Amino acid sequence: MICSSSTTLDLTVAFGRVRLEVDDLLDRLIVVPDDDRAVLFHAMRYAVMGGGKRLRPLLVTATCELFGGSRSQALLVGAAAECVHAQSLAHDDLPCMDDDDLRRGKPSVHNAFGEAVAVLAGDALLAFAFELLGRRDVHDDGSVRAELVRSLAEAVGAAGMAGGQVMDLVATQGVDAAEIAKMQELKTAALIGWCAEAGASLAGIPAEARASLTRYATSLGLAFQIVDDLLDIEGIPLRTGKRLGRDKAAGRHNLVTILGRDEARALASSTANQAIDCLGQFGERANLLRDLARFSVLRDH
Amino acid sequence: MICSSSTTLDLTVAFGRVRLEVDDLLDRLIVVPDDDRAVLFHAMRYAVMGGGKRLRPLLVTATCELFGGSRSQALLVGAAAECVHAQSLAHDDLPCMDDDDLRRGKPSVHNAFGEAVAVLAGDALLAFAFELLGRRDVHDDGSVRAELVRSLAEAVGAAGMAGGQVMDLVATQGVDAAEIAKMQELKTAALIGWCAEAGASLAGIPAEARASLTRYATSLGLAFQIVDDLLDIEGIPLRTGKRLGRDKAAGRHNLVTILGRDEARALASSTANQAIDCLGQFGERANLLRDLARFSVLRDH
Repeated sequence: MICSSSTTLDLTVAFGRVRLEVDDLLDRLIVVPDDDRAVLFHAMRYAVMGGGKRLRPLLVTATCELFGGSRSQALLVGAAAECVHAQSLAHDDLPCMDDDDLRRGKPSVHNAFGEAVAVLAGDALLAFAFELLGRRDVHDDGSVRAELVRSLAEAVGAAGMAGGQVMDLVATQGVDAAEIAKMQELKTAALIGWCAEAGASLAGIPAEARASLTRYATSLGLAFQIVDDLLDIEGIPLRTGKRLGRDKAAGRHNLVTILGRDEARALASSTANQAIDCLGQFGERANLLRDLARFSVLRDH
Repeated sequence: MICSSSTTLDLTVAFGRVRLEVDDLLDRLIVVPDDDRAVLFHAMRYAVMGGGKRLRPLLVTATCELFGGSRSQALLVGAAAECVHAQSLAHDDLPCMDDDDLRRGKPSVHNAFGEAVAVLAGDALLAFAFELLGRRDVHDDGSVRAELVRSLAEAVGAAGMAGGQVMDLVATQGVDAAEIAKMQELKTAALIGWCAEAGASLAGIPAEARASLTRYATSLGLAFQIVDDLLDIEGIPLRTGKRLGRDKAAGRHNLVTILGRDEARALASSTANQAIDCLGQFGERANLLRDLARFSVLRDH
């Protein structure tokens, strides 16, 4: 599914591997109990498993391994990022929010389990992400675990993803490209940037040495988001797994509706190139991250 | 407001003090930005400030100070517990859940800010609780902070509060008292138990020595919940700040609807006495916790 002309063989293999590993990990970690809570666990598994590209875990493992860190620790952290991502999708799809009935080619969580369970499954996934980061097997050093928690909470909270979603909801007709870029940075790029930082931090790289990686990932996140918005009007539903044209129908604004397709595509390309420019110091070891930046603009799903 | 014949002077003073301190702390920590995210921060402040008894922060400070721990650290942890509590109320009040339009004498969050902002404000408060626990000023030892995060996440996630709320939603006519007690334990007592454990853990008390405190707080939480359910049918709206008779009207079950008022009141009393029995080893220093257990059954709000 990931394999296409827009990926290199290395990237295809890396996506496939991390996907299997993260799904296996989540399958073992989210165990459905034999009581009335079962429906909640089923909804959590439905929201987080068997879908998505696993871009975030790939970023955590790739940046962690770039510095010789542990893959098993990176996978736990990547799984936490996927739980947060799945939570934001489950809540954003709710009727009171974006009102999307299709996600990753399946009925969205509230469509499959009802609104109440969708709200609670999101809450439970968010809590579970932090539960994972608090585990001793994430890192020997408790202060590294606590800082991963603090920085993830910042990326997903009111100043980050939740704040970006509110900006998106209240955006009016007169919104300009700079405001949209700021909103996208909060809504999408903050978590993607966190993934790259987290991988490096697991490997013991100090905060100041992670700055170029964070810039890489933030640019990557913006490029991904612009292409998501292009695919919303140009994509093939079977490959994107979403209904197309939702943003336009809802009167929502993004960089594609503001700049037009051609300019938006050019911006995605230049943003991906900026991402690649941040990797100079890492030499050939960072080729996977370069491939990922190229994939971000060439993908069709 | 807390002062009544059911509290001792010490407990009245302790409630008043922790309330001022926690409100001041949240006021300084949740700062409204000057951009489109402002409404989200206003909703967070509305949900978490200026209401509630602050039972949870009182438990954290009281158990922390019982062992000579730092009050300022306990207040940060207590503020985190209040954020989690406010999140659960904001989401439980949603139309798709319990559909409550009144909370703490004010319109519930979705009534004041709309459903979308209420969902996001809950998400942001949950994230903010973990952001607080990850801060260095919560405790010097990062592994203490990380364990507070892990255990809080467990208490609020699918196996804890969110799981209890799902059990409440799916409970059918044939539910028995044991099942209700289990549901209440997850929905309410787990977080209250965590507060007592967290206070002791801040003060450096090892897990095995915290067991009696946790049993105390879990019993306290159950007694509080039974009395909440009694107040739902007997209380004075002006003091409880909620519409009364909601559970009965919604066909929801709790220990009062199952056991009847008299038996439920007797169970609350015996549960509060069990809580007090757990405190024997702590002598007079634990008198505030004893007063709190007595207050849990005698209160009228």
